[in-house]
Amino acid sequence: MNRIYDVVILGSGPGGIQAAIHASRKKADVLMLGRMHKSSLFWAHVENFCCQLKITGEEMLETGKMQAENFGTEIIEEDVLSILPQGKHFQLTIESGRTFTARSLVLATGTSRNRLGVPGEKELLGKGVSYCVECDGGFFRNEPVAVVGGQSAAVGGSVTLSHTASKVWLINDRFDVAPELLAQAREQGVTILENAEVAAIEGENAVTGLQLKDGTRLDVAGVFIELGAKGVLELAATLGLELDETMKYVQTDKKQRTNIPGVYAAGDICGPPLQIAKAVGEGCVAGIEAASYSKRLKTAQTDADKETD
Amino acid sequence: MNRIYDVVILGSGPGGIQAAIHASRKKADVLMLGRMHKSSLFWAHVENFCCQLKITGEEMLETGKMQAENFGTEIIEEDVLSILPQGKHFQLTIESGRTFTARSLVLATGTSRNRLGVPGEKELLGKGVSYCVECDGGFFRNEPVAVVGGQSAAVGGSVTLSHTASKVWLINDRFDVAPELLAQAREQGVTILENAEVAAIEGENAVTGLQLKDGTRLDVAGVFIELGAKGVLELAATLGLELDETMKYVQTDKKQRTNIPGVYAAGDICGPPLQIAKAVGEGCVAGIEAASYSKRLKTAQTDADKETD
Ligand SMILES: Cc1cc2nc3c(=O)[nH]c(=O)nc-3n(C[C@H](O)[C@H](O)[C@H](O)COP(=O)(O)OP(=O)(O)OC[C@H]3O[C@@H](n4cnc5c(N)ncnc54)[C@H](O)[C@@H]3O)c2cc1C
Ligand SMILES: Cc1cc2nc3c(=O)[nH]c(=O)nc-3n(C[C@H](O)[C@H](O)[C@H](O)COP(=O)(O)OP(=O)(O)OC[C@H]3O[C@@H](n4cnc5c(N)ncnc54)[C@H](O)[C@@H]3O)c2cc1C
Repeated sequence: MNRIYDVVILGSGPGGIQAAIHASRKKADVLMLGRMHKSSLFWAHVENFCCQLKITGEEMLETGKMQAENFGTEIIEEDVLSILPQGKHFQLTIESGRTFTARSLVLATGTSRNRLGVPGEKELLGKGVSYCVECDGGFFRNEPVAVVGGQSAAVGGSVTLSHTASKVWLINDRFDVAPELLAQAREQGVTILENAEVAAIEGENAVTGLQLKDGTRLDVAGVFIELGAKGVLELAATLGLELDETMKYVQTDKKQRTNIPGVYAAGDICGPPLQIAKAVGEGCVAGIEAASYSKRLKTAQTDADKETD
Repeated sequence: MNRIYDVVILGSGPGGIQAAIHASRKKADVLMLGRMHKSSLFWAHVENFCCQLKITGEEMLETGKMQAENFGTEIIEEDVLSILPQGKHFQLTIESGRTFTARSLVLATGTSRNRLGVPGEKELLGKGVSYCVECDGGFFRNEPVAVVGGQSAAVGGSVTLSHTASKVWLINDRFDVAPELLAQAREQGVTILENAEVAAIEGENAVTGLQLKDGTRLDVAGVFIELGAKGVLELAATLGLELDETMKYVQTDKKQRTNIPGVYAAGDICGPPLQIAKAVGEGCVAGIEAASYSKRLKTAQTDADKETD
């Protein structure tokens, strides 16, 4: 059987770290996932966060990780590739293929504001250009597609597409994922172009091709731009998560509850202001709430077991 | 005319500081009030706040104050004694008697969980023992009362009571307020007992007296225990602020708005979890929202002025 955690936290930016600290302090069994150096904070120089005068984001994240570990949080620096509801629990698969079970989740995956910035991208959005494999992958059955990006969203997305598309290209200058995931893409027949960069997306009213900087032209009907990790849109698609009115952020109440029992969210994923202070505030609440939710779930389970004895 | 500020922040704990930083960054004219060493954080040793490993509350507050000042916040280390709505503005009076006008307010005064801990206190609560001059002062017209405490809530409360009670005693071991405020109490005929400590509150079904540790007995019908600064109950009474269902905390929405337009709240005053992370998160949102509220107010004012020209 899978290892069961009380609280699994997706994301190791300030929101995830603060959630991990507070959930662990509540004696919950906590796992924190995600890549610290993919946090928005990593490259930042911070001056407006109480109460530190001048500090780099990298230093903050290093310290935060240490704090979470000190309080008992387990940390695996991999992205989550899928979340499936399983009764009252959640089944998670991470990049290396390992799976875990969670009683509760804290979504703190931040935002990925990443556009490719090439000609044709804006013009062909919704006409073959997409930022979400889970949302739009189904439109390209038996057609050739390209996925652009080097992280889990892109590589995982190429695997997903390989089941339905006639041909999948995976394109990036370099890949930054667990080797198991890249191997899986290769096994599925995905053609991986490393050291490759997109120059333009072609087509009039629909995508017809992709132009690379080295002059190569690929015949594709769909281009998936997946420059971040698995993000909010993908999670929304598989979990049935409600978004706010902008459709860009997760809807939460003041206890950081989403519409799904046991699923909490914190930080940039919940919308503006996109600031560290807000991320840690929401992380604190989400961590505490998730820990007590999973405690209630365990108690209810024990009571139910007793009754059936 | 009074100096007008865009945003006045009541409280200089982590909630108030973060609000000050974010409001000042929005180029609002910001005043922060309150005594740093009265923050709950002042005596704390902090380990669970992302992303600092081990730090004293005092150091955090010192740094936070410096940050707020660097971004342009004006700081006066005095408590607010009264807030009066004045059209769309708020009129504030602080300990030294100075007054200011605010376009918007951020309430970040924390909680004061201070009981006196003497015999009779619990038993006679609501039967002559009260924690709120503004709420219950009117019940003791032409009767002798005592106020216990050495900060602004107690000294200011004794002044308020002097207008209606037949006699007011003000009791504490030492007083920690602006000298102007203490002078005002003296002028109003309040009898100030310094170096005095309460031993017990006497009475069966109603307060009849107060026993001091030195053996003195005072004939009083009411005892007001005001050990903190002016707190949420007092502010609620004068502003018409809505409290949450526990009646202990201010009710806010996700934008940290209270029921009064232009009044925001952040930190412990909004309820549990009483944690630094939550305080800075709410402070960030409240500061940003208050700054943009006052900007809208100014624009509306300018438009109205133009129309009447
Ligand atoms: C250049 C820059 C400078 C900034 N400067 C400041 C500043 O000075 N002050 C300030 O307050 N804010 C600043 N910000 C904003 C601040 O960095 C963010 O508000 C903050 O990092 C949000 O925290 P978060 O925890 O929500 O998300 P992030 O910090 O972005 O962390 C997201 C985490 O989720 C992980 N993740 C993503 N997908 C998955 C997945 N599928 N599975 C598992 N994990 C996943 C990532 O690996 C990462 O660890 C800045 C942002 C940038 C980009
Ligand atoms: C001993 C102790 C240890 C703690 N340790 C931790 C910890 O390790 N980690 C953690 O996360 N939290 C800890 N806390 C809780 C944390 O200190 C609070 O959650 C936090 O300080 C709340 O911030 P705040 O800004 O809401 O209020 P406070 O920090 O309490 O600040 C309130 C401010 O309001 C001012 N004020 C009050 N009345 C008025 C008035 N009428 N006019 C103007 N100003 C006024 C005060 O002078 C003060 O500056 C601890 C608390 C205590 C008591």
